[in-house]
Amino acid sequence: MRPIAVDAMGGDRAPGEVVAGARTAADAGIPVLLVGRPDAIAAAGGGDLDVLASTEVIEMHDDPGRSVRRKKDASVLRAAEAVRDGRASAMVSAGNTGAAMASALLRMGRIRGVQRPAIATPIPVPGSRPTVLLDAGANAECQPAWLVQFAQMGSVYARTRYGIDEPRVGLLSVGEEASKGTGLVKEAHALLADPAWSVGSGGKFVGNVEGRDVMTDDVDVVVTDGFTGNVVLKTLEGGMRFVERALLEAMTSTEELRAAFEVLWPAVLPLVTDLDPDSYGGAMLLGVAGVCIISHGSSSANAVVNALGVAREMVEADLVAALASAVQA
Amino acid sequence: MRPIAVDAMGGDRAPGEVVAGARTAADAGIPVLLVGRPDAIAAAGGGDLDVLASTEVIEMHDDPGRSVRRKKDASVLRAAEAVRDGRASAMVSAGNTGAAMASALLRMGRIRGVQRPAIATPIPVPGSRPTVLLDAGANAECQPAWLVQFAQMGSVYARTRYGIDEPRVGLLSVGEEASKGTGLVKEAHALLADPAWSVGSGGKFVGNVEGRDVMTDDVDVVVTDGFTGNVVLKTLEGGMRFVERALLEAMTSTEELRAAFEVLWPAVLPLVTDLDPDSYGGAMLLGVAGVCIISHGSSSANAVVNALGVAREMVEADLVAALASAVQA
Repeated sequence: MRPIAVDAMGGDRAPGEVVAGARTAADAGIPVLLVGRPDAIAAAGGGDLDVLASTEVIEMHDDPGRSVRRKKDASVLRAAEAVRDGRASAMVSAGNTGAAMASALLRMGRIRGVQRPAIATPIPVPGSRPTVLLDAGANAECQPAWLVQFAQMGSVYARTRYGIDEPRVGLLSVGEEASKGTGLVKEAHALLADPAWSVGSGGKFVGNVEGRDVMTDDVDVVVTDGFTGNVVLKTLEGGMRFVERALLEAMTSTEELRAAFEVLWPAVLPLVTDLDPDSYGGAMLLGVAGVCIISHGSSSANAVVNALGVAREMVEADLVAALASAVQA
Repeated sequence: MRPIAVDAMGGDRAPGEVVAGARTAADAGIPVLLVGRPDAIAAAGGGDLDVLASTEVIEMHDDPGRSVRRKKDASVLRAAEAVRDGRASAMVSAGNTGAAMASALLRMGRIRGVQRPAIATPIPVPGSRPTVLLDAGANAECQPAWLVQFAQMGSVYARTRYGIDEPRVGLLSVGEEASKGTGLVKEAHALLADPAWSVGSGGKFVGNVEGRDVMTDDVDVVVTDGFTGNVVLKTLEGGMRFVERALLEAMTSTEELRAAFEVLWPAVLPLVTDLDPDSYGGAMLLGVAGVCIISHGSSSANAVVNALGVAREMVEADLVAALASAVQA
């Protein structure tokens, strides 16, 4: 297998955590290609791994559109080029999300027939497989037909990554009835209600779903525009952070509570890990002509390891070919 | 004070819990007027309270628009009429949300100058005052100018209900930069950035906020369209329900854990109560010419008591007059 290009300079904790994660993955047999400044990579202890030198870095706060045009030698652009040129089989970046999307789109291009790539993010569901939410932020404003393609691509991803034979696809709205929601949602509902869209993807439309259904096992794929999807994702993040903090505070406020908490913590820990975005290997940009994983900006070494594991799986399962046939069917 | 009209037939647990709540409130000195079928109210033990008889009921699953046109003698419509006619000072319903909105709008009318009424929902913030989220579902699609009025009305509500002198108003988007979001968000941002809107309301625009900020004390009022607001609300509800269930499960799985849990439960309980929509007295429909509270469909007697308490407070503080001057300033 060709190596996976890792944007060594991307992320709040790059290059240190990124290089550490890449090393762990390499030790476990996943071939990696670190892309970035050789001196920074060496200082982070990755000097002996394969390196593709690049001199520029797109920072987290940089404007994505402008920076990908101006910083031609940016690590994230070079990583996308490595996939385009066949030197790498996939790319992983924990850097600026907009720049990673733009790099993949500009350098790899779209899968033929795809109107707009979308970000697919797995949302944890207790005791069950995650729900795939898309678009989680690539396209703030969408057309109904794009949402149909998101349903196709999300179904393929749920099948390829989680082994779900006939993924149940819900359309995010504010009520179950087809008459609820915005004009976009009503038009997308009408298109999805015709099973023709699902021929190549194996998905099954189960109607409108609501925000409260995302973390349940009533649905496998939730389709929405990138604005709403991003709001859902960040609302859940905020809600979980709030609960964790409040519980920790409540539980460690007296000695007696602290003692009880220490008994409980090992039982609660798997739950917290379940909710941890690091465990999920990052979001997948579906619809570009290559496997592209965009990890959380705060990714730890462990998150990078998980992202690399998912990238390898998706390359081996030929996700891109499956997406192409779903969209072109 | 004139009584508060209570839709005795509205809600999953009506009339039982609604009548029980009204009785508790009445015993505590809040004058109430129960609206609904006298026999059902009597059977629920409310026969000796003031009753306004109505023969029809709009069910939770009824189409709001059609049912308010056809069921002229529905309890929720009669409650709104009682406010319009000066027989009641406010209305409270835990029934069909769309029907309650339509009833208030059709019978009370809008405050002069208000383009669209909005649903304002308090979102709990640990250790701090709630964040007022609006629109939480009245208008699936919005114009930029409506969002400016939501900012005005939300500021008045945060000031009147929570005593916040200069409420910080955030615009929900997918990034802090003014360039982020949909066309609607960008145009609303530009309008809100000009402090002229805040003259009559005392609000202060703090820029874009994200889903993760809603449950923090970084902002007092979060403005968004009714589709996104409703999705946020239901996503939080689903997330909280998930965490509660998962924690309970983890904590009571063995005898040792159960014992530790029993020590911790009293410390965790206030947190759970904080998150309970029942504690918050329901959502407020801002912009109609009267105080109108729409409680959760699953409202308990306690939720009804809280809603009646908030209704009285808002009548006494003359919320409607304050909203009118904010919008007309």
